[in-house]
Amino acid sequence: MGIEKVIIIGSGPAGHTASIYTARAGLSPLMFEGEMAGGVMPGGQLTTTTHIENFPGFPESISGFDLMDRMREQSIKNGTTIKTMTVDRVDLSERPFKVYCNNEVTSAHSIIIATGATAKKLNLPGEEALWQKGVSACAVCDGGLPVFRNKHLIIVGGGDSAVEEALYLTKFASKVTMLVRRNILRASRVMQDRLNKNDKIDILWNSVPLELYGEDSLTQVKIKNIKTEVESVMDISGLFYAIGHLPNSGFLNNQIELNNTKYIKTHPGSTKTSIEGVFACGDVQDSKYRQAVTSAGTGCMAAMDVEHFLITKS
Amino acid sequence: MGIEKVIIIGSGPAGHTASIYTARAGLSPLMFEGEMAGGVMPGGQLTTTTHIENFPGFPESISGFDLMDRMREQSIKNGTTIKTMTVDRVDLSERPFKVYCNNEVTSAHSIIIATGATAKKLNLPGEEALWQKGVSACAVCDGGLPVFRNKHLIIVGGGDSAVEEALYLTKFASKVTMLVRRNILRASRVMQDRLNKNDKIDILWNSVPLELYGEDSLTQVKIKNIKTEVESVMDISGLFYAIGHLPNSGFLNNQIELNNTKYIKTHPGSTKTSIEGVFACGDVQDSKYRQAVTSAGTGCMAAMDVEHFLITKS
Repeated sequence: MGIEKVIIIGSGPAGHTASIYTARAGLSPLMFEGEMAGGVMPGGQLTTTTHIENFPGFPESISGFDLMDRMREQSIKNGTTIKTMTVDRVDLSERPFKVYCNNEVTSAHSIIIATGATAKKLNLPGEEALWQKGVSACAVCDGGLPVFRNKHLIIVGGGDSAVEEALYLTKFASKVTMLVRRNILRASRVMQDRLNKNDKIDILWNSVPLELYGEDSLTQVKIKNIKTEVESVMDISGLFYAIGHLPNSGFLNNQIELNNTKYIKTHPGSTKTSIEGVFACGDVQDSKYRQAVTSAGTGCMAAMDVEHFLITKS
Repeated sequence: MGIEKVIIIGSGPAGHTASIYTARAGLSPLMFEGEMAGGVMPGGQLTTTTHIENFPGFPESISGFDLMDRMREQSIKNGTTIKTMTVDRVDLSERPFKVYCNNEVTSAHSIIIATGATAKKLNLPGEEALWQKGVSACAVCDGGLPVFRNKHLIIVGGGDSAVEEALYLTKFASKVTMLVRRNILRASRVMQDRLNKNDKIDILWNSVPLELYGEDSLTQVKIKNIKTEVESVMDISGLFYAIGHLPNSGFLNNQIELNNTKYIKTHPGSTKTSIEGVFACGDVQDSKYRQAVTSAGTGCMAAMDVEHFLITKS
């Protein structure tokens, strides 16, 4: 088997923009788009979002699924080969690099890592047994299921995503309670304005969930007010985490330099990593902006960095 | 008159993505989109491009004009106020900053600079008199004009843009000659491949134009081979510059730190400039990637940086 010029791992906006650009540069990219990698479909976290109103070029809004479908079509049209497989591990000890999927190994002169990030959980007692039985980390993916209709639901978190998901749940739920660890919201002003206008939502400040109860599905949650230390049990039909993300960098097995929260370190103003020939883009290297369009921008940068690397080094 | 929360100067992908995001954050942005600022229409350099095939989300390709039209619609829909005026100068000596347009002055707590870059010329003898009379810096804008149909045309330059514009001109011209200063092309492999496949294009290596001749319009150009020092005069109907860009940072009058090629310096991984509260995005701060999607990405970053700045500093 020959050696690929470039392998792209991941299929969100960063991965697909990288593949559109490397394909147009004649590099015949091979993309491993993942198979429920990081718990989401090919296309990444965006596939779990309904209306995207802030991706430039779509004034009428577009669903995350449709946007990623369009990007995938564009990747293929420009000459990308896509495999619906999840990369298990990589060997970056020498060039060509090796990429392992199931029992297959593929070699490549360069790699673009665009594996994104995954929503965090709290690992509470009862959480694992009740996972996807009333407990979820994605209100937008699961909130519309019949089991949650006209029920009282909980969102855990106080950031933009938490507020956005709370608002989303009000379309289906009878009532939504936000559990916010602090006494303020981290969410942006526009999101707070929207929250205040929605009378289906109430907020429990200084509050965290402690334990989840239920037989076949979630029925109750124990909540603690961390200021008063009072614990209470609330009847509930669903609980959704919206407490941040972990970068999907574990499969690299520390062969690349990461920061203290496991995000891949890149050189300033570039997508270069600590290993020459390996580039990173999108949420796996960005804990700050994390938007579809910023990911796409860094995907383009990675492609141009790869093109330059291959011309000068191979 | 009140003080604006944020003024956005410029209306390319960076400016409009910044305005979409600041508008959605409830900051009621005011955009000065320019009136032929930098020699191009509101919407920036992209408005002079025909088919854009690499902006993620548009597999069927889109014209630059249409893409910018969609972004402008999205800015307005989200709550941006747009003024079709060109900013003359700014006063950044204290906050609120002052922005001057004609005889109007507007104050703002923060400014996003997204003024882009402008195509370079050579200022040859005859150039000014024959400007837009056979001499242009934008093959894609002007190449389709009747005066250039089935004629012999010249492109000056050896980079990606030069090759792209040469290819574009072959749709209309009988023959296209590239004047390349060096003995190699800086253009990427994919562009060179395409060039080699097109038999309407020939290349004069080590060659530069010296002087332009014509009465009502360009008829001849004097060309020098800088290796042999031989000069010759060629009959020609059009000459198009494709020799790079200058960032539109002159109106800042050195109040912000620039690099040695006049691009605005930004802090690594951020859009912060040397003045707190002033942010820069797009081509005016990027001489390296210069793509629509990378510009849009930095526009989003600028908006988020502004939102953070206003929450913490005002």
